[in-house]
Amino acid sequence: MKQVETLSWSGDAFNGTLALIDQTLLPTEFVKVECRDVRTVWEAIKSLRVRGAPAIGIAAAYGVCLGLQSFFQNGSQENANQSEKHFFTHLEKVAAYLASSRPTAVNLFWALDRMKKKAFSYQGKGAKPFTEIAVDLLDEAKAIHEEDRIVCRTIGTHGNSLIKDNGSYLTHCNAGGLATADYGTALAVFFAAAEAGKQIHVYADETRPLLQGARLTAWELKQRNIPVTLICDSMAPFVMRQGKVDAVIVGADRITANGDTANKIGTYGLAIAAKAHRIPFYVAAPVSTFDLNLKNGAEIPIEEREENEITCVYGDTTGKRVAPEGINVYNPAFDVTPAELITGIITEKGVIQPVNEQNIRKMI
Amino acid sequence: MKQVETLSWSGDAFNGTLALIDQTLLPTEFVKVECRDVRTVWEAIKSLRVRGAPAIGIAAAYGVCLGLQSFFQNGSQENANQSEKHFFTHLEKVAAYLASSRPTAVNLFWALDRMKKKAFSYQGKGAKPFTEIAVDLLDEAKAIHEEDRIVCRTIGTHGNSLIKDNGSYLTHCNAGGLATADYGTALAVFFAAAEAGKQIHVYADETRPLLQGARLTAWELKQRNIPVTLICDSMAPFVMRQGKVDAVIVGADRITANGDTANKIGTYGLAIAAKAHRIPFYVAAPVSTFDLNLKNGAEIPIEEREENEITCVYGDTTGKRVAPEGINVYNPAFDVTPAELITGIITEKGVIQPVNEQNIRKMI
Repeated sequence: MKQVETLSWSGDAFNGTLALIDQTLLPTEFVKVECRDVRTVWEAIKSLRVRGAPAIGIAAAYGVCLGLQSFFQNGSQENANQSEKHFFTHLEKVAAYLASSRPTAVNLFWALDRMKKKAFSYQGKGAKPFTEIAVDLLDEAKAIHEEDRIVCRTIGTHGNSLIKDNGSYLTHCNAGGLATADYGTALAVFFAAAEAGKQIHVYADETRPLLQGARLTAWELKQRNIPVTLICDSMAPFVMRQGKVDAVIVGADRITANGDTANKIGTYGLAIAAKAHRIPFYVAAPVSTFDLNLKNGAEIPIEEREENEITCVYGDTTGKRVAPEGINVYNPAFDVTPAELITGIITEKGVIQPVNEQNIRKMI
Repeated sequence: MKQVETLSWSGDAFNGTLALIDQTLLPTEFVKVECRDVRTVWEAIKSLRVRGAPAIGIAAAYGVCLGLQSFFQNGSQENANQSEKHFFTHLEKVAAYLASSRPTAVNLFWALDRMKKKAFSYQGKGAKPFTEIAVDLLDEAKAIHEEDRIVCRTIGTHGNSLIKDNGSYLTHCNAGGLATADYGTALAVFFAAAEAGKQIHVYADETRPLLQGARLTAWELKQRNIPVTLICDSMAPFVMRQGKVDAVIVGADRITANGDTANKIGTYGLAIAAKAHRIPFYVAAPVSTFDLNLKNGAEIPIEEREENEITCVYGDTTGKRVAPEGINVYNPAFDVTPAELITGIITEKGVIQPVNEQNIRKMI
């Protein structure tokens, strides 16, 4: 199966390049951004060229490595003997700069913390040259990258057990390779099923307002030769009624202790419609998505986004308005699907089913 | 309350003008198309400058009058003594031409048939000058126009009994003045409530793919100073869960003998979500919307529309694509909401509630 490499590193720790698919240009243009310095990575995260929690984390980890390259003066190692204090100050600055790109992305901080922890484990010991620390940090970034790949593959494997040959499925937004290292969460299930030789068909909701389903999910499935049909979000219940959907599989932004799940706006309505048609509704997400500090969905804050995502086509304020000037808009970025509407949660450790606090704590 | 005149006639039967709001330019531009010949009316219907079943019917009726003006040589009456055969042949040609503008619009044929019936009632009697027939036909067009106005006002009056002060309501697509003479069906209920002094708030679904909710409903409500909040279709269930919707009120394209209702795609999902939240779900429609020849919704054919309405922003094939080239698309124009999900149907004869065949036949 054709791979979509959301991110890839080439070169060594002193003269390396991080290449990213520019997701803002998809599906009309397939362009890779070549990041040779930390500023380019920062801009790519900020401008959503790379998006999806795991993918942002990986990009930030590699961003730390690129940030260190300037310390070694663009790939030469002549400054390797500078003071330890200087080295770690530089590293802290790079990490803080990257952290400022998207202040609300949890995986971003998680990845930066992990990179810093690795580096500071050598601090004050004096034995290890900075050049070797840099090499170790690139290995750590590659490990973060590789671990995500494995987690997604394993989610796919577990999810595949729920997929039937000649089945037809529905997904929302983009929980695909583009949001992760290369395989995705919800889409990993479809990729694994296809690799296992099952014939499947997927309905992709376009996912207003930012159209990640039309732009990214439809593109990814097409890239991997999985038959896909694009529909508007409002068409999903009608498609279900026609008997064309065997199960709904979506990703997740955050899952609370009782299994309530925050995901892209529109997920909740799909879950209600699935229940009305007795169609199984699955969430696919790594265990890192669970936030056991939150008791239930009522504790999840709801992010509201800019009006122009809705009032202007495709969020482009220079483009054609599709709503009157001065109109009041409500634009919640996600909604919460209560656990009782979720048939199962597919994680890298197995499928949690039925979804309740006891089963969640047992599994993760 | 400020009126929005979707259509208006000025002048007499021999030198008249039909002015139409160009709905393709809303909400960014408010432009009226001045129709002085039948060709301009034909183009306005064809290009959706005028849309909505009742509005199309009214435009076609006036179109017949404009078509007769060329018979009288642009307003002069000097050809009034031409042969009867010549006059009725001309009338038939005008009506057939207008009928070709939108082959599936039931109200279009209904209005043209009514105009022809009026004209042909004079055929072969010889007593009435053609000029007087033309005057009578303009009166008939004005009667069609005025009757629609009264039907919509009466729907509003009946619907208002279901609206509470300080209530918040949700609607889908545009069942407003722009689709009718000036008051609408679903929106008539809100207009009547506001005129009765009730403070209300309306959520308008944007209604993908053609965005009639964002473009037209939001505009109409704003014009009439009714507080409106625009949301994406997928946000409605979440808004319902937050307790922000007291009832859903939508229009209808066709209602079968048992009360199953075809309406703009997305209506069915709203009805499911409303039921899940125990929110009343009303359909507002004139009795002319009922098709008692159809037993239930399974007999309603589902129109599928062009892919580019979804794959290109706002249906503009010259504009930016939002989906990959060659992607498979399913674009049903409407869905069917089963009667059991409908709390009541608001007609000009009263509210049918509960919705079943017996109550429908009793009322209409």
